[in-house]
Amino acid sequence: MTEQAYAKTPTNTVKRLGNRGHYDFETIHTIINKCPVLHVSFNDPDNPFPVVLPMIGCTGDFTNQNVDAAASPQDIYIHGYVSARLFRCGGAAKDQDDQGLPITVAATYLDGLVLSLTPFHNSCNYRSAVCYGYATLVPPSSPEGLYAMQKITNNMVPERWERSRIPPTKAELDSTSILKVRIVSASAKVRVGGPSEDRNDLKNSELKERVWTGVVPVWQMWGDPVPGKENGREEVEEYIEKWRLEENRRAKTEAFGAVEKVEK
Amino acid sequence: MTEQAYAKTPTNTVKRLGNRGHYDFETIHTIINKCPVLHVSFNDPDNPFPVVLPMIGCTGDFTNQNVDAAASPQDIYIHGYVSARLFRCGGAAKDQDDQGLPITVAATYLDGLVLSLTPFHNSCNYRSAVCYGYATLVPPSSPEGLYAMQKITNNMVPERWERSRIPPTKAELDSTSILKVRIVSASAKVRVGGPSEDRNDLKNSELKERVWTGVVPVWQMWGDPVPGKENGREEVEEYIEKWRLEENRRAKTEAFGAVEKVEK
Repeated sequence: MTEQAYAKTPTNTVKRLGNRGHYDFETIHTIINKCPVLHVSFNDPDNPFPVVLPMIGCTGDFTNQNVDAAASPQDIYIHGYVSARLFRCGGAAKDQDDQGLPITVAATYLDGLVLSLTPFHNSCNYRSAVCYGYATLVPPSSPEGLYAMQKITNNMVPERWERSRIPPTKAELDSTSILKVRIVSASAKVRVGGPSEDRNDLKNSELKERVWTGVVPVWQMWGDPVPGKENGREEVEEYIEKWRLEENRRAKTEAFGAVEKVEK
Repeated sequence: MTEQAYAKTPTNTVKRLGNRGHYDFETIHTIINKCPVLHVSFNDPDNPFPVVLPMIGCTGDFTNQNVDAAASPQDIYIHGYVSARLFRCGGAAKDQDDQGLPITVAATYLDGLVLSLTPFHNSCNYRSAVCYGYATLVPPSSPEGLYAMQKITNNMVPERWERSRIPPTKAELDSTSILKVRIVSASAKVRVGGPSEDRNDLKNSELKERVWTGVVPVWQMWGDPVPGKENGREEVEEYIEKWRLEENRRAKTEAFGAVEKVEK
């Protein structure tokens, strides 16, 4: 099992409610890859406040492209579309060992709102992963850069890369940046189940009959595609609809499934 | 207009695609309050990686409780349920002017996936807010602490605070922390509309007939409530169902509405 998990260290160990902590590759990499937006944070030498940027990315392993992300170490590749500041730092700032820019990548999903008899026991079902690592720039026109861009595109919608216009032009490659994060530590935190209650509240039958308690599941719903102004194809391609409907089904099933699970 | 917006400074100015930047209270506070999870980031003196914690919170103004959050400056109140590390730092570490712990609060919504003829023009419709401020602890048993907890609870589900068991017990108050972030700078970034395309791709009729382009809208969907094991009330309370169905309608309308909007 140790080989399929990140080592527990002071950096990544979940301290409060440690039973919710997970360190295995599968839990952590799945949350990163299923979360549509990653929050990327790094220190700003000119400012007391960390920079936080919402970005798009996924895990990958360029040197071992056929391994299963659920069972092996991974890097995180991030697309630089919205991240001029990060890439400026990532290209220039190096720590003393020249490992790259230290950054933290966080991904969080809400699975449900947990409503208890009293506000203090309200909670959320959620899945959250935090990865700590060193970021370096990958040239977009290199084989690794192309691998990363294909991976990020298809992590959103499977097959989209090869079914749209490729290869990229030189101008496109020149306008893009890819950040590679070598993960050195990571953990996930997952909350499942229904409400917990104060023992005294459970003896109060007036309260129990008056206040509904339980979970309102929540998930991300992809709606009917809206064609763009320049769209020249009447029907939405089947692989897009397949992806969309399967994602909706999976996400809904997981949100309801989380309610039935029991915390360790 | 200046009085209803955060000043543009080097910290918060949206540099890339500056036309997507917003600085007004309404846009920023609405994103913070409608986003179910906030990502809170702060520097860790023992570690090169910033700490990032997913947390629950909302805006408020204790000294001016009846003002409209859309039109006035606000603080951010954060509930300390999952944040032992942050509150340890927030209670102890002060900067040289004793203003509190410098933290960054980020909130991001995805409104749609924008699919173009080529992967390099794919994009997302999104709303994202980043607030920079100084955090201090508020005693949960103080009037301001109770104000904040009521605000955070009702920001999730309106009326839930007063319709469940209150006041909190001493044990509940002792086990909770409230962080107050005094915002010193903030900005939002919003992307709307459909795909943009490479001019040459639009001349390629084979490509245009083969590849569907447009937007797949996405929103957060709240499902049918699942009663907990200890629930003693048969019907879900009406105010919960009203909140749930209205939120679903609003979120779906906004996701589809974003497609129709035109970027400045």
